[in-house]
Amino acid sequence: MPVGTLATVKTVTPAQLRDTGAQMVLANTYHLHLRPGENIVASGGGIHKFMGWNGPMLTDSGGFQVFSLSEIRKITEEGATFRSPYDGRVIELTPERSIQIQNALGADVIMAFDECPPYPASREEVEAATGRTYRWLERCIKAHGRAEQALFGIVQGGVYPDLRQEAAKALVDLDLSGYAIGGVSVGEPAALIEKIVKVTTPILPFEKPRYLMGVGTYREMTQAIAAGVDLFDCVIPTRWARHGTAMVNGERWNLKNAQFKEDFTPLDESCPCYTCQNFSRAYLCHLVKSREILAYTLLSIHNITELIRFTQRIREAIVDDRFAEEFAKWLAPAPDSSDP
Amino acid sequence: MPVGTLATVKTVTPAQLRDTGAQMVLANTYHLHLRPGENIVASGGGIHKFMGWNGPMLTDSGGFQVFSLSEIRKITEEGATFRSPYDGRVIELTPERSIQIQNALGADVIMAFDECPPYPASREEVEAATGRTYRWLERCIKAHGRAEQALFGIVQGGVYPDLRQEAAKALVDLDLSGYAIGGVSVGEPAALIEKIVKVTTPILPFEKPRYLMGVGTYREMTQAIAAGVDLFDCVIPTRWARHGTAMVNGERWNLKNAQFKEDFTPLDESCPCYTCQNFSRAYLCHLVKSREILAYTLLSIHNITELIRFTQRIREAIVDDRFAEEFAKWLAPAPDSSDP
Repeated sequence: MPVGTLATVKTVTPAQLRDTGAQMVLANTYHLHLRPGENIVASGGGIHKFMGWNGPMLTDSGGFQVFSLSEIRKITEEGATFRSPYDGRVIELTPERSIQIQNALGADVIMAFDECPPYPASREEVEAATGRTYRWLERCIKAHGRAEQALFGIVQGGVYPDLRQEAAKALVDLDLSGYAIGGVSVGEPAALIEKIVKVTTPILPFEKPRYLMGVGTYREMTQAIAAGVDLFDCVIPTRWARHGTAMVNGERWNLKNAQFKEDFTPLDESCPCYTCQNFSRAYLCHLVKSREILAYTLLSIHNITELIRFTQRIREAIVDDRFAEEFAKWLAPAPDSSDP
Repeated sequence: MPVGTLATVKTVTPAQLRDTGAQMVLANTYHLHLRPGENIVASGGGIHKFMGWNGPMLTDSGGFQVFSLSEIRKITEEGATFRSPYDGRVIELTPERSIQIQNALGADVIMAFDECPPYPASREEVEAATGRTYRWLERCIKAHGRAEQALFGIVQGGVYPDLRQEAAKALVDLDLSGYAIGGVSVGEPAALIEKIVKVTTPILPFEKPRYLMGVGTYREMTQAIAAGVDLFDCVIPTRWARHGTAMVNGERWNLKNAQFKEDFTPLDESCPCYTCQNFSRAYLCHLVKSREILAYTLLSIHNITELIRFTQRIREAIVDDRFAEEFAKWLAPAPDSSDP
């Protein structure tokens, strides 16, 4: 899922997004609550109509942003209190409030409000957060007022395998529409992410969507897919695009580099995206150096297409029983930390 | 002609631009010479291929930018010397150099290198600039090395009708492919622009393109068309878009205004553009307030479409002999200076 934080996948129109092959889009409840507010989105006919995206959509609960972005906050059993970065207003987000907001936004999939402990955190801290996440989930289920929206629960448990497994089992007993693995990609090493995913997915039902939140690089996705994950979201393809970086065949290319200045080939000859079909590396280099906005649009289109095609190739390889062999490079541990 | 300064109509892809109905695009020789340099554009197959625009293109001579943008400059009979704003390098632009650069860029129409006097300027200053512009044009004709590119001459003469007419007559004697009226929109009142155009166009041949440079608002275009002008270029539709301003039915709307916050109608019900067909004023208001880049893309698409449609309506009205009546509002003098 490309990320459409404020009801827009940055720099890309819905028509361009559809052409990348993307199916589902994520939007952020925290950001949309602050701007323009869920009531305006609801008055506009819901998030799909408001932003012009006809495909499936998912909203997160706002929890991750409250815990990672908000400067002033108080966390109690009731919920979390934070200060709006726009007008300083104090806002309380509770499980009930998160679900109300997500009901108003109207995405196809909504997420339970969870407490995401930081990394590193002690076993005691993680235990407390995991227990609270479960009690908040029960309140989310009660508060959920629109049966046509699928509510996913989130497995927390930090880097402690037994806490993850315990949390996963408790969630499965609630027979939800889908399950997410949360609280990863918060600073822990890549090897730990893989370990967390590997111990959790076998407990989650095979026939329901399993979603690894906030993950989306080549290696992380490949390893998580091997462990049984179906769904990802990540800002990397669009964020890197806005930094002038193209994702090509598992590599990161900084388009400002002199090597591209007179390179009139497309980013990737085999890529069917609008950017590769119409523009050269030299042109993209020129746009990036000139800080032309079109650079960010064209690179976002390519990067999203690249990651969608990557997962398509994995899907085909799984069906043809050549996944482990063909993706051995990505199934191996990362050689260094700058790995895409 | 929408303006594609650095080989990109800012924030808009060529595919989106084609859908606006735009036919011809202008690119700036001054800017492209500085970045990425005409040799790179030429190596990439010329300006059309480099930027992915299959329609007709025009490059200006660079003169206007040298005279209006460059801080340090020296003007002699030979040409103009200025300092690059990027690396401080001293660059000399002469008639021959301007044509060489434009030959390398490869647009369908290229412009003679002219001296554009400021406003206000004394009759003596304007006479000197007009004389020099003529001598420079003769050098441009000699230097022009690609017959498939149409070379247009530029009528100067400031706000002095007799100087304009004299210059126009001298140009017509050279039997060029087309003629431009330059040195307007440099600060003089709108009424003076109309006067300049009205005294000049009758002298320029009816069967050749007549191009009013740097002009493109509703009223200026209508009055110039009434006087016989065929071609315009203007940054207004895209520049205003990047300021969050929509052009709707002859009005300027600031999308930040509270009145649009919950207005779920399109900018213009009758507009066929992608923006009006898919998005509401409320959504555009949200994007503009959130400084989302997509706002600038969607508003640019609409504003260009709006001005192209405006000129299409004028064309049809002329054919049906109802131009003067239907466009009386725009043919009248501007009621105030904030007029679009």
